[in-house]
Amino acid sequence: MARGAMENSSSPSADKIEEEVAAAVEEAKELSDAVSVHISRNQTDEQPLRQRAVALDSKIRSLRSSLYSLLHNKNLNPNLADKLDEDLQRARCILVDGDASSLLPGHAQGRFLRMFLGPINVRASRKDVQLKVKEEYNSYRDRTALLFLLFPAILLVLRSWIWDGCLPAFPVQIYQAWLLFLYTGLALRENILRVNGSDIRPWWIYHHYIAMLMALVSLTWEIKGQPDCAKRQRGVQLFLQWAMMQGIAMLLQNRYQRQRLYTRIALGKAKRMDVVWGETAGVDGQLWLLCPILFILQGFEAYVGLLLLKTAFVGVISEWQVVFCGFLLVLMAIGNFTNTVQTLMTKSRFKAKMRRSKSKQALN
Amino acid sequence: MARGAMENSSSPSADKIEEEVAAAVEEAKELSDAVSVHISRNQTDEQPLRQRAVALDSKIRSLRSSLYSLLHNKNLNPNLADKLDEDLQRARCILVDGDASSLLPGHAQGRFLRMFLGPINVRASRKDVQLKVKEEYNSYRDRTALLFLLFPAILLVLRSWIWDGCLPAFPVQIYQAWLLFLYTGLALRENILRVNGSDIRPWWIYHHYIAMLMALVSLTWEIKGQPDCAKRQRGVQLFLQWAMMQGIAMLLQNRYQRQRLYTRIALGKAKRMDVVWGETAGVDGQLWLLCPILFILQGFEAYVGLLLLKTAFVGVISEWQVVFCGFLLVLMAIGNFTNTVQTLMTKSRFKAKMRRSKSKQALN
Repeated sequence: MARGAMENSSSPSADKIEEEVAAAVEEAKELSDAVSVHISRNQTDEQPLRQRAVALDSKIRSLRSSLYSLLHNKNLNPNLADKLDEDLQRARCILVDGDASSLLPGHAQGRFLRMFLGPINVRASRKDVQLKVKEEYNSYRDRTALLFLLFPAILLVLRSWIWDGCLPAFPVQIYQAWLLFLYTGLALRENILRVNGSDIRPWWIYHHYIAMLMALVSLTWEIKGQPDCAKRQRGVQLFLQWAMMQGIAMLLQNRYQRQRLYTRIALGKAKRMDVVWGETAGVDGQLWLLCPILFILQGFEAYVGLLLLKTAFVGVISEWQVVFCGFLLVLMAIGNFTNTVQTLMTKSRFKAKMRRSKSKQALN
Repeated sequence: MARGAMENSSSPSADKIEEEVAAAVEEAKELSDAVSVHISRNQTDEQPLRQRAVALDSKIRSLRSSLYSLLHNKNLNPNLADKLDEDLQRARCILVDGDASSLLPGHAQGRFLRMFLGPINVRASRKDVQLKVKEEYNSYRDRTALLFLLFPAILLVLRSWIWDGCLPAFPVQIYQAWLLFLYTGLALRENILRVNGSDIRPWWIYHHYIAMLMALVSLTWEIKGQPDCAKRQRGVQLFLQWAMMQGIAMLLQNRYQRQRLYTRIALGKAKRMDVVWGETAGVDGQLWLLCPILFILQGFEAYVGLLLLKTAFVGVISEWQVVFCGFLLVLMAIGNFTNTVQTLMTKSRFKAKMRRSKSKQALN
């Protein structure tokens, strides 16, 4: 409407249009130059800030290791060491959770992102955007966790109520296609989070690559019908049960992760912050609920994998997809277990160290 | 190595470490504030430039339509109109192909990108990065076009030489999985290009969504073996032949697109440029080679689609995947044809207009 009105009313006359076109070309040149100057000045201003950020980051690291060696050689009061360690963590938190974090070098963009997206930069320049990305990732995981629970549950219920113990191919294939889409999305998002400075363990990303591969392979896997349906669909049925359990575990994990994130958002917003930095404050209790569930899930994952391998070797089903999926499930179970244990050990290491040093000094 | 050395040699004493930690905390606070100030100042400086860019963009549009209406009412010398139109195109080129383009609002990030990537911003702030993305997209298309030619060719050759006229399932499924990955990558990249101001027609992106869906469906489509292999695999065989032809068309298209891009890169690099702006300079000849090939390809695409539908209705193969893929192929052929014709018409419209006006005035 607005454009149409302009065309009719404010059309310049034939004499004036030549002038106006020349003015537009001139304005384009001037504006283009002004923007180039603005961009390069911005980069010049940024350079010293970037250097300061990198220097401070390495300073904090070296102070932290000095602190540990002083504590180890008993040259430092453990209570003071405790306090200083907390201060250093706070400094690091200000650096990493504030706008300055965009100046620190992030993880390089890996092959996976390049493969799907090309050379576009997915690093957010402002911390609030980075946090928004992470929050959205968590709510995405929440939504998918619910579907993870409901989708296989509905399939299993319909199987016994309507389908007479025999899953038809189409809904299962829809489910498998959804899994492929889901894992691709998760792998892409996690790679983006990593580029933005998230310290997500590489295994969890590899895990999603393997899950993508498994969803792809399972799509080519013919869903056998009658006769002898129960026996031939045993693998699919077990897989669906495992997926339901995974839905529950994902919901619990999300709750835990989200509480950690909210703590950090609160810290990031408070300028010149004097709040105590606490990564796992108030969520330690949940960890002791989460861990057994994760371990049971991993055990069940390995069990389903081994069962698939067994059905292939006793010859009930002889397709390569069965062997391959069985192998991948066992691989994922082992990897998940190893990494969960390592995460727990890292979390408790520093606390134990502090406690040991304190009790030693108390004895002396 | 460097870090290890620092830990051992330059470790501060117990007295000093308290000071140094306090200094680090202070530096973190100061740096964080400095970065926030820098970011907000940059945004303040950018605001007037952004307003100028938007104003100039709409000014160029309105001048262009004034020019057409003046020409239409015969109030303007057609030669002058020609020259002014070229000037306006040049102004637009300086604006859109220079750094200022990052200040113009691009296409919004659509649902597809959000679905896979979340809310991360994929808009490049510098024009040279945007052009690099486009160039990489073109070289990606080149590489895939070669594979598009070779992959089905190898399958077809092996089919007649080694596999005795009967394609085994596994290599075909590898090919289908590759297609799925390829089309997902292309759809993501094209969406990213669109966000970065590329004026790619929406149909070509929808086309890749449909192709993704078809690759996914074809994965669930059981590849039948002996007996009667030739008849039951007729659809797959036709599809592979069509894919080979598409490889050739993609290679030609890429050549054409690339020459257009190089012209624009050269213009973008030249500051205060006085070179003549020419979108299709020197590539018009290739268009007349490309178009017949595209039309033949689209005809063959529709033919394969109809053949699939026919095999389904006469009852040789009765799986839903056949009907679905046939329908999608016909749909894509119709859409491709319509859009190719529209593109050609848009390209020739302005030239024809100019020519008509000139000859009219000559008659008067």
